[in-house]
Amino acid sequence: MPYIHIQITREGTAPGRDAATAEEKAALIKGASQLMLDVLNKPLESTFVVIDEVATENWGWGGLPALEYRRQREAARK
Amino acid sequence: MPYIHIQITREGTAPGRDAATAEEKAALIKGASQLMLDVLNKPLESTFVVIDEVATENWGWGGLPALEYRRQREAARK
Amino acid sequence: MPYIHIQITREGTAPGRDAATAEEKAALIKGASQLMLDVLNKPLESTFVVIDEVATENWGWGGLPALEYRRQREAARK
Amino acid sequence: MPYIHIQITREGTAPGRDAATAEEKAALIKGASQLMLDVLNKPLESTFVVIDEVATENWGWGGLPALEYRRQREAARK
Amino acid sequence: MPYIHIQITREGTAPGRDAATAEEKAALIKGASQLMLDVLNKPLESTFVVIDEVATENWGWGGLPALEYRRQREAARK
Amino acid sequence: MPYIHIQITREGTAPGRDAATAEEKAALIKGASQLMLDVLNKPLESTFVVIDEVATENWGWGGLPALEYRRQREAARK
Repeated sequence: MPYIHIQITREGTAPGRDAATAEEKAALIKGASQLMLDVLNKPLESTFVVIDEVATENWGWGGLPALEYRRQREAARK
Repeated sequence: MPYIHIQITREGTAPGRDAATAEEKAALIKGASQLMLDVLNKPLESTFVVIDEVATENWGWGGLPALEYRRQREAARK
Repeated sequence: MPYIHIQITREGTAPGRDAATAEEKAALIKGASQLMLDVLNKPLESTFVVIDEVATENWGWGGLPALEYRRQREAARK
Repeated sequence: MPYIHIQITREGTAPGRDAATAEEKAALIKGASQLMLDVLNKPLESTFVVIDEVATENWGWGGLPALEYRRQREAARK
Repeated sequence: MPYIHIQITREGTAPGRDAATAEEKAALIKGASQLMLDVLNKPLESTFVVIDEVATENWGWGGLPALEYRRQREAARK
Repeated sequence: MPYIHIQITREGTAPGRDAATAEEKAALIKGASQLMLDVLNKPLESTFVVIDEVATENWGWGGLPALEYRRQREAARK
């Protein structure tokens, strides 16, 4: 009876997109449910998956909003 | 000091609606808080309820997005 | 397809108990699931309930650990 | 490796605003991350913060939607 | 920057076990993180996974504690 | 009416300890509640804080259980 809560930033994975597509979300649902079946032998029908898309300014990492943290990390790599 | 997090799909309960109404949400809040009082003797003022409405394409069951899973189950019943 | 997460402090409701009993938890599960059926017309079989029992020193209210906050409130009432 | 989930009502802190500002959210992220460093010695880069803004009608306290509960409490104080 | 919360019942997958093994948990962590990389192109180092093992009497499905619901479903299949 | 959920690994901050101390947890509760007051003007009495201590083998980062990921990162720094 697994419940899987996936939180991601609301962003596109390709230019011109601003969020995960329905296909990508379906792939997350399928993959996460399959993982419970493969590892723990849980039937697909007993797994819930909930995807939560979070605005980038609502996600913090490194003490900063997500986009700012990424910029800082990329600058540090150069 | 209970905290109750209710996740539901964003859908209407009657034709022409696309989400739970304010009255329905108030009923969820009242019922969940009352349950804590009845079962655990927690005063109403010490209970928080948070309702989270999730887009149907962000909710997975049976390895599929929610609406697709429902269609599949209903087809199987026929 | 509701998912309900109930967080409560780990405490007994009567002298000599230090946690909710199995019967109380079953009552929480039954009541929360029934609420989804009554208010949103969700079949019982489509609702998950997860009860999370939290040590009182891990629960904060009023800027204090739960037991300390309660003592302070009760003192203020006198 | 802390993860901090902050749920707040979606409201402004000053007239003319209807939600927390980007600056306020950045302050929450910075403050929560710093707290993990100060108290538990966790490096900033190992802390995630997620802010979840909840519509006031989706938040319950005292068995009522949040705004109604506040009105009732304020009336009781008079 | 995904965060994945996996809630499962605390049960073994084979006779003589009463919980998921460290190997099974590592497989859940690996699989869930890889899924974020495959579907959303998120680097492994930007994904947190938290596994939460829930006592079966704290998990409800079908309005009943989990084990009771399973027994009832299995009886109905016969 | 903020609710703050803090998930940390169950580990001590000094030799001979295997978990956060009651004092450290009280400091997390105080600091997180104060942050809501300072940034969003929320009274202390309207904030709940819940601390969730997670076994290190239940926490994943970088596709690995937490301790293994740390070892790998430290090795990479040398």
